[in-house]
Amino acid sequence: MNEVTGAPGTSRPGGRTARVREAVLRAAGDAFADKGIGGVDLGEVARRAGVGKTTVYRRWGTVPGLVADMLAEMAESSLPRARTGDLDADLAALASLILATLTDARQGPLFKAVIAAAASDAQTAAALHRFYRVRIDEWSPCVDEAVARGDLPAGTDADEVIRALSAPLYYRFLVSGDPLDEAAAARAAAATAAAARAGAYT
Amino acid sequence: MNEVTGAPGTSRPGGRTARVREAVLRAAGDAFADKGIGGVDLGEVARRAGVGKTTVYRRWGTVPGLVADMLAEMAESSLPRARTGDLDADLAALASLILATLTDARQGPLFKAVIAAAASDAQTAAALHRFYRVRIDEWSPCVDEAVARGDLPAGTDADEVIRALSAPLYYRFLVSGDPLDEAAAARAAAATAAAARAGAYT
Repeated sequence: MNEVTGAPGTSRPGGRTARVREAVLRAAGDAFADKGIGGVDLGEVARRAGVGKTTVYRRWGTVPGLVADMLAEMAESSLPRARTGDLDADLAALASLILATLTDARQGPLFKAVIAAAASDAQTAAALHRFYRVRIDEWSPCVDEAVARGDLPAGTDADEVIRALSAPLYYRFLVSGDPLDEAAAARAAAATAAAARAGAYT
Repeated sequence: MNEVTGAPGTSRPGGRTARVREAVLRAAGDAFADKGIGGVDLGEVARRAGVGKTTVYRRWGTVPGLVADMLAEMAESSLPRARTGDLDADLAALASLILATLTDARQGPLFKAVIAAAASDAQTAAALHRFYRVRIDEWSPCVDEAVARGDLPAGTDADEVIRALSAPLYYRFLVSGDPLDEAAAARAAAATAAAARAGAYT
């Protein structure tokens, strides 16, 4: 039964379908964070979510299908961008948000698992790229506003600035293993702002 | 028999042990690039290398042990840094080298496989971090020389500059899926030089 309309089996937000999706995506995220994506099957996700196995197979089909829906849900529900009116403060806020995500006890291993799976699965890679596309679209107006204020050169590529800010944090997280801390986040923001002001992203 | 000393079974360069190592590491790299690291076992590597399985098990023990030795060998044999006497040219050379590696038909999938495996295996992660440590130690003198020439502020952290240059290329490769091309490499070098000159890495 749907709480709002009383109709059974509808898919509107708050309905049974939405509750099943929420439970399954949460269980999937927990399982992927624990064991990596290769170590999980849909049966385990159904068990963890307390949902029938056939429901999960029918709706998501495969583990990459489930990962793609999880990333879509994460993109839909992620925090809105900063609007401080100041480029340095906006970039510092984004760097802090990325840092908080990558160092979170659940989100960190989950992102690591998804990115690792994307290395060998095209469907997961496409879903991951869509996720970052949504994040870039959310944050790039911070850069466009700085251009409009005259704080950055005309023609600055806002998407490139957002990627440039993100890159050093992901590099530490995935590749070099160097500390991922407030100093690294502050440096990523400051370096990106300096390079952008120097016209490196026009 | 060793070609130089005539002694059997020695491990000096050019000897039988070195030839076995070379064959096994090459076969392992090919297999990992083809199938990802999770899809390969030591028996397959031995078969591909034309070497006895017990030799491979005795010397490398496990797949992560073999990956670690492969990375050590790659670090030993990788190209020396640029010495152009100009920071922009040195950084452009490093960006081109990273681009060539990540877009190479064999090296690209191999790095992707190793980085993915490092997400869930501590021994592989440690070996990967040692590999980048060696690369940073090789290239950071380019930055120190620019400081000595007065082209960068005193106190510039050379390691951070090398990481900052690498990060946007790895970010595209692993995370965002944006094009990995000469323009991206040139932009990574130019942005890093601009941020470094502005004092972002002091």
